[in-house]
Amino acid sequence: MNEFELIARLTASLPSNESVIVGAGDDCAVLDVGIPDRQLLFKTDAVVEGIHFLADTLPEKVGHKALARCLSDVAAMGGTPGSAVITIGLPPKRDPGWVEQVYDGIRNLATRYAVAIVGGETTTSPDCVFISVALLGSIPKGRAVLRSGAKVGDALFVTGELGGSISGKHLDFEPRLAEAQWLSSRFEIHSMIDLSDGLAGDLPHILHASGLGAELRADAIPISRAAKVAAKELHETKSALMLALTEGEDFELLFTVAPSDAVPLLDQWKARFSDVRLGCIGRLIEEPGVHLCDKTGVHPLTSGGYAHLRQSK
Amino acid sequence: MNEFELIARLTASLPSNESVIVGAGDDCAVLDVGIPDRQLLFKTDAVVEGIHFLADTLPEKVGHKALARCLSDVAAMGGTPGSAVITIGLPPKRDPGWVEQVYDGIRNLATRYAVAIVGGETTTSPDCVFISVALLGSIPKGRAVLRSGAKVGDALFVTGELGGSISGKHLDFEPRLAEAQWLSSRFEIHSMIDLSDGLAGDLPHILHASGLGAELRADAIPISRAAKVAAKELHETKSALMLALTEGEDFELLFTVAPSDAVPLLDQWKARFSDVRLGCIGRLIEEPGVHLCDKTGVHPLTSGGYAHLRQSK
Repeated sequence: MNEFELIARLTASLPSNESVIVGAGDDCAVLDVGIPDRQLLFKTDAVVEGIHFLADTLPEKVGHKALARCLSDVAAMGGTPGSAVITIGLPPKRDPGWVEQVYDGIRNLATRYAVAIVGGETTTSPDCVFISVALLGSIPKGRAVLRSGAKVGDALFVTGELGGSISGKHLDFEPRLAEAQWLSSRFEIHSMIDLSDGLAGDLPHILHASGLGAELRADAIPISRAAKVAAKELHETKSALMLALTEGEDFELLFTVAPSDAVPLLDQWKARFSDVRLGCIGRLIEEPGVHLCDKTGVHPLTSGGYAHLRQSK
Repeated sequence: MNEFELIARLTASLPSNESVIVGAGDDCAVLDVGIPDRQLLFKTDAVVEGIHFLADTLPEKVGHKALARCLSDVAAMGGTPGSAVITIGLPPKRDPGWVEQVYDGIRNLATRYAVAIVGGETTTSPDCVFISVALLGSIPKGRAVLRSGAKVGDALFVTGELGGSISGKHLDFEPRLAEAQWLSSRFEIHSMIDLSDGLAGDLPHILHASGLGAELRADAIPISRAAKVAAKELHETKSALMLALTEGEDFELLFTVAPSDAVPLLDQWKARFSDVRLGCIGRLIEEPGVHLCDKTGVHPLTSGGYAHLRQSK
């Protein structure tokens, strides 16, 4: 049983109540708590030393990443973040100055997006360091962009460039809040997700939730410079394209719109976000699965991305 | 710098926004998000293996405790819990069945209080297990019971019996939600806190927030049977009274009311909660600090509880 299967089992029969519009299983939960014109978004996430950062990572960047991951989830719903609470697990011997610098990173990012930090707990941990963030956001009633709304024929878009995040971006990425709010206020975004487990890992969440498949154009995948450098360092045992498709922590937006919206969206995007790439990388189809098209043909892409493509190199 | 000093430094200058009525530093944050007649409560907390539970603790109890701690904080504001999100950090080799049983404990408790679980993340952790819970609750507008509202002359009450929680109660306590809601809907509760760090550790939070001191009557402190047994096992090197005052994780309510409310409150409590002890254990005074009165005199009580009383035994 992998992580996704475990989560699926755990979240299959969770208790609910009348406030829940969308429960576990999307980027954020959506709650109707009685605000006349808005709904709440609710999300939690954690970063752990040795997994999401290292003992010698700059603590400001650790704090930035911990909060930015949750902000990216609120962005993926088209929402606006509101307030956050933080729990830090800390071994007794850890320098308190380290925590203060983690908070500097959290504080700087929170201030930029008018996010209030309304609870800051520390708890003793025998030997591991973790930072758990829970974030409240909001969205105009009924306007949350879910994973489940994709339609056959939709154009599939991704922001930014993919792959190579481990070389630095995973610690200092800017959550795509402004971009997502702009998108969802101006266009009918059918479905959206933020990329945390790689395009090949996260696209299937949209496809599964929407009951569809996707056709990707290999030459349209935006490959980051970092992924190209990494592929060279790996002596092309893994291609830059494969790194772009499968590496995690891109924190870019993946979304779908009706095909008739594709060109106007691209035009208006370029005028508004001239420094952020936006690429149409494929379309949604009825046939399940992810199908990668290159000049050699059509290749099924697994969530790990490896199987068929490494053979077809 | 101890945990409380660190938290005080971290939370001294946190970013805020217009929704924040009460930020970090009380049992929960209080937020006005535009619900016409209610305010939100927001809280996070975590339990860590080796600190709050052991590797062989029944996983259902681990789940129960993780959620119950947050519910106890919502109780301490007089609020009603609404929905929760969970993050579990798990080493790769841990049996997924363990997590499912943790969720059973969470699910059972959540169902009892109509709490929706709207997000359940698991994240890899190198070697430690932690469960972080964030909880949303609500309260009628302006009715949150804070730590800062105590007044000189207030009668000081505590629910249940204190001490000895480590022998079992810390894993299966029932959060005092019904009691707290009953109290705050029928009486003007001036201040309230839940006991997680022992009476001697938590009472000072009320006193500090309210700018007051307290006089405790030693013979009125409700000592649990478990604390009495533990004191015997320690050959009275630490008295049962001292265990009741200083041991953590009682998760009882400590609150203050005007002295004129004390007798009616006790009478009505007995009629409503015949199986839960409620004790008037002292009163609030102007002189700072906690002063414990017994037949030998008045003894200053430190937050650790030790210094003067062990000498006076």
